[in-house]
Amino acid sequence: MRPNQQLKNCQCKLLFYFCKMLEEKNKDRTPISELGEFGLIDHLTKNFKIKQESTIKGIGDDAAVLNFKDSEVLVSTDLLVEGVHFDLSYMPLKHLGYKAVIVNLSDIYAMNAIATQITVSIAVSNRFPLEALEELYSGIETAARIYNIDVVGGDTTSSITGLIISITVMGRANKKNIVYREGAKANDLLVVTGDLGAAYLGLQVLEREKQVFQVNPNNQPDLDAYSYLLERQLKPEARLDIVKLFKDLKLKPSSMIDISDGLSSEIMHLCKHSKLGCDLYENKIPLDPQVISTCEEFEIDSTTVALNGGEDYELLFTISQDDYPKIKANPNLTVIGYMREENAGMHLVTRADSKIPLQAQGWNALNDQK
Amino acid sequence: MRPNQQLKNCQCKLLFYFCKMLEEKNKDRTPISELGEFGLIDHLTKNFKIKQESTIKGIGDDAAVLNFKDSEVLVSTDLLVEGVHFDLSYMPLKHLGYKAVIVNLSDIYAMNAIATQITVSIAVSNRFPLEALEELYSGIETAARIYNIDVVGGDTTSSITGLIISITVMGRANKKNIVYREGAKANDLLVVTGDLGAAYLGLQVLEREKQVFQVNPNNQPDLDAYSYLLERQLKPEARLDIVKLFKDLKLKPSSMIDISDGLSSEIMHLCKHSKLGCDLYENKIPLDPQVISTCEEFEIDSTTVALNGGEDYELLFTISQDDYPKIKANPNLTVIGYMREENAGMHLVTRADSKIPLQAQGWNALNDQK
Repeated sequence: MRPNQQLKNCQCKLLFYFCKMLEEKNKDRTPISELGEFGLIDHLTKNFKIKQESTIKGIGDDAAVLNFKDSEVLVSTDLLVEGVHFDLSYMPLKHLGYKAVIVNLSDIYAMNAIATQITVSIAVSNRFPLEALEELYSGIETAARIYNIDVVGGDTTSSITGLIISITVMGRANKKNIVYREGAKANDLLVVTGDLGAAYLGLQVLEREKQVFQVNPNNQPDLDAYSYLLERQLKPEARLDIVKLFKDLKLKPSSMIDISDGLSSEIMHLCKHSKLGCDLYENKIPLDPQVISTCEEFEIDSTTVALNGGEDYELLFTISQDDYPKIKANPNLTVIGYMREENAGMHLVTRADSKIPLQAQGWNALNDQK
Repeated sequence: MRPNQQLKNCQCKLLFYFCKMLEEKNKDRTPISELGEFGLIDHLTKNFKIKQESTIKGIGDDAAVLNFKDSEVLVSTDLLVEGVHFDLSYMPLKHLGYKAVIVNLSDIYAMNAIATQITVSIAVSNRFPLEALEELYSGIETAARIYNIDVVGGDTTSSITGLIISITVMGRANKKNIVYREGAKANDLLVVTGDLGAAYLGLQVLEREKQVFQVNPNNQPDLDAYSYLLERQLKPEARLDIVKLFKDLKLKPSSMIDISDGLSSEIMHLCKHSKLGCDLYENKIPLDPQVISTCEEFEIDSTTVALNGGEDYELLFTISQDDYPKIKANPNLTVIGYMREENAGMHLVTRADSKIPLQAQGWNALNDQK
């Protein structure tokens, strides 16, 4: 019964704030079973246009057919599970579809590559009306349009309980441009895009408002003070702009990763793969003013949030110090530390100038249900 | 609580018949959370070897890196959901892992292409011990080894309830060799590989034995009379051999599809995509003797089972009549009908020589929960 309940919750005032588009549709409820499996896929994907030259044949046969010519092909996949990765009581379906695509694209951009195609598989309870799936696919279509991605395949099936979204993304890059997690050198600069911790705090705000709503459904939350945090949680973007910037600057990072699990965990991945240590400077970590003020309100340490919060989908990369002039004037990029020899260890240099070992406490999906 | 219950059921005598390998492992139960997400992926994939020349970089970065040179790239994806696509009370996890790969490979072979890589995403409750996931991955690894596929990526996460497996498969083919669902011509021969209906009947036998077991757990079923049916349900194979055969015979089908939803539904796909009709001859449909005897026992019509049963993973294709000499001596291939002009309609020609319209009643995942 949960999904129905969740769609009903969607009319609550908290969600009224986010998902007006769903409300209008709630009047119409078409059972999925009316269309059948093939009719459903056709219906949901009929607006999807093929834009990429590398897509020879999209949806409609046993497999899609692509051709990447001389390019290397990048492939990554992510699975999003209701109740683990998202909560439909405050995540509008359109935003969820959008975010599910973004999460995948981010992995391709983290290789300094261009994402080109996705396949989308959905398992959904029959109790979701067609209109709910249309919202989800509308978000997927929006992300595909903005990031210039073709949706070339997928599977739609039923689930016993919640909603599950599995997306596989493909991309392309010239061999010489691909950036791996390995490849950083000692003394390289450690650089991060954007700012950190906001998506995690957005989730904390939503969880708090959900609890308030459960106690008092008439409460009308004022969420203006958290608008940036909520946007980062509910409608994150992937850093295609940075991949384009690298091209324009003729800059190739020596290593790169995207920040999905938290800065600390991702830095440790770069260090481990490149067989290096690092010094990360606490006072350099970029934080939005809303992150600072909300951390004060919630009485949590903003550095801890930035290090371990996750879901930022920013890029973390290393560059040779020789390349510093290329990035120093860019407000999107912040140098947060240096790579060190492996035996120097991985450290956070605190504001008080003491060194403490970095620890990865990143969001661990498999511990969530402990 | 379900997954634990299902693993316990696994010690029942019915399963003792199928999954001795699991029983030995049941003594050791390591909580998944002991390894953490990264440790888990590393642990489960450490035995996976890279074999394909097109795999430049497999598991271990934000994305896999592949290079297909001049070949076209084929992509397909399938999602398997516990309680919808499989029942762990009689599906050993190793077989499930194997079958999950086969189901995907079949889509690539249906394009007359060679499957080369897969990504595997799993959502699983924390209540599954590590040993259960090892069994699942052992089946995946076995299929990957036999069919010469690289496992190049994946995602492992928790689920609230059951087990979900999402696999995306990639393959390669020369452009001129790819066979689509469209392309058949009127008067082409309609040909099917292997025999039909056995996998569906295997499922019926397993469902019946499960009910018997629930009533009397001491009952020891004698399943020898159904060995072929059970093998087709629990350990299906994909027809890579046929793709190789086409190459050896220098034969390119005019259209092709794999039989996952039932012969009737797949024939209708070929007709619809090729804008044709067809005559399918009931007396030509290839049936194994166990299918015939079990249909008599279950008092169901064997033609209905072959037309609508599904999960056969055989290939259905059309060839020009000029190519008939190339296939006529092959015991793996059976001519079951002719393609007709579109306005002639799609018909089953019965043993009594009457024509009745074909209907697709194929297994419809989205109606299952009605």
